[in-house]
Amino acid sequence: MSSRTAPVSLAELQRPLRTRLDRVQQELRRIVEADFPLIAQVNAHLFQMQGKLFRPTLLLLAAEATGGTDPRAPTLAAVVELIHLATLVHDDSVDHSVLRRGMPTINALFSHQVSVIMGDYLYSRAVIELVRLDDLEPLRVLGRVTNEMTVGEMRQLLAHEPLDFSEQEYDLLIRAKTASLLSGACEVGALRAPPPERAALRRYGEALGMAFQIVDDLLDYEGDATVTGKPTGSDLREHKVTLPLIASLPRMGTAERSEVEGLMRTPEPSDAQIQGVIAAVGDAGGLDYARERAQRLADQADAELDALAPSAARDALRASIAYVVERRR
Amino acid sequence: MSSRTAPVSLAELQRPLRTRLDRVQQELRRIVEADFPLIAQVNAHLFQMQGKLFRPTLLLLAAEATGGTDPRAPTLAAVVELIHLATLVHDDSVDHSVLRRGMPTINALFSHQVSVIMGDYLYSRAVIELVRLDDLEPLRVLGRVTNEMTVGEMRQLLAHEPLDFSEQEYDLLIRAKTASLLSGACEVGALRAPPPERAALRRYGEALGMAFQIVDDLLDYEGDATVTGKPTGSDLREHKVTLPLIASLPRMGTAERSEVEGLMRTPEPSDAQIQGVIAAVGDAGGLDYARERAQRLADQADAELDALAPSAARDALRASIAYVVERRR
Repeated sequence: MSSRTAPVSLAELQRPLRTRLDRVQQELRRIVEADFPLIAQVNAHLFQMQGKLFRPTLLLLAAEATGGTDPRAPTLAAVVELIHLATLVHDDSVDHSVLRRGMPTINALFSHQVSVIMGDYLYSRAVIELVRLDDLEPLRVLGRVTNEMTVGEMRQLLAHEPLDFSEQEYDLLIRAKTASLLSGACEVGALRAPPPERAALRRYGEALGMAFQIVDDLLDYEGDATVTGKPTGSDLREHKVTLPLIASLPRMGTAERSEVEGLMRTPEPSDAQIQGVIAAVGDAGGLDYARERAQRLADQADAELDALAPSAARDALRASIAYVVERRR
Repeated sequence: MSSRTAPVSLAELQRPLRTRLDRVQQELRRIVEADFPLIAQVNAHLFQMQGKLFRPTLLLLAAEATGGTDPRAPTLAAVVELIHLATLVHDDSVDHSVLRRGMPTINALFSHQVSVIMGDYLYSRAVIELVRLDDLEPLRVLGRVTNEMTVGEMRQLLAHEPLDFSEQEYDLLIRAKTASLLSGACEVGALRAPPPERAALRRYGEALGMAFQIVDDLLDYEGDATVTGKPTGSDLREHKVTLPLIASLPRMGTAERSEVEGLMRTPEPSDAQIQGVIAAVGDAGGLDYARERAQRLADQADAELDALAPSAARDALRASIAYVVERRR
């Protein structure tokens, strides 16, 4: 099955969409254009640290794969990216993160205050832009998604007790925090498609998004700071409990468990503590478990695509699954 | 003219609306109902520190004064209050405020993180609720308003240089920060009214909102902690420059000006410094100037109401102006 093929780069996936993605970028700039100097400065920085446009890519592919020639697609894709940016800005502020993709965050470069306000600014610009499209349907999907993301953030805040945080709670967290917007992007791309295709793409996006977050959490255990742009073990450093740890805890011996408990009690764990827990998680099979779980979700996503007619865009959606599970950053 | 009559209490204004305001409260509770324990806790606290429902009151009066029997009015009023609450939660977080209406703020009682997320939660619930009404018009007005409020907050952040902050910039700030939502509340109440009435109520709300903020800023110079619920001079303590100071600076002597400059350079000004500047502002006529400015705006608001047919609701809108300019808290 194609989701098990060799690594696919996002750049390859995006090559046929280049012109449309450039249009998304233009839309993004148009939407947040501001005569207010501080907002313009913050925007300039946001565009510099600009993401990989994965969500817009999915939206454009979903539109194309359902035969759509929805002229609103680039605007909708820009709005989805804008909501994503707004979320990142608030997340970094909530987490007090200083780096994102190797660049200083808004809260580090400007201030906590600017982050809170700027997130609100971007989000309200997104709403205004959706209203301009004169259609309630994208607002219906993306309003729900944005609300789910805030609930996910709230769950994250409460996820500090490793022995109390179950895989089920983790699923709820990543569904809300990550899968929700990827699913929304796919669904909004297919708003003019027949309802069964729209629903299949919504479920595709949800499974893909959960796999995406599990791989992200795995990379924090496996990755290399020069590749992922963040130091290995940063979740553990912040006492964030993710699937590899959840899965390995019941299989650990008393010594390893108390090592984990020790780390969670230490306000600023040492590198040695972190590397120790990473090793224990690996030994207890936590990484294998998480990788298998991501692959099962990838397979689910793949199966949903059978609801669509064959097309180059559907192939690209399949290749997106491979990109998600094979990516190293 | 009625806006110069004896003090009017908000309770009096609201008496004929009691049943409808109770319905607004019910709507508010329905909209933010959450099965998520932390959200439910935060909501419970928000309802306890609940405001005076001034914006919902204006919305209901605007609806009634334009002959409207819009069945959506209580829901729209609840959404406007929800947006107001979301803004307060983020403002308190941005300002690191610990008290609001004499009660601990969300950031003080829970955390900065919870405040950021909770504001986002409330705002996205508001969007969802507006989408449910199946009408883009309220979203159009309130999306713009919310965006204007974020720009106002941004202006506030930059308003720390007293000698550089002009009355014109102050006007832009209070229009965005305060007048925008009061204006939006009045306009949304009149969505089904003839366009000239809708426009008159929008302008009424804007002038009223500016007067409201000027009086708020005056109370910080004049008020008494037991009445306003916050210590006198708290804006000066936080180096916030408002109309009384802006108006008096050009009329001050060198000694008073350097007293002001000294306060602005002191990270935590003493009570003596604050009382000194308050006295200097009074002596230079800053309070009189601000009060006259508020009264002129009140007169403008009053004149806009001539566009509406006479009614008890129009009388109540006039009385609302008196409430705004005469209030002591």
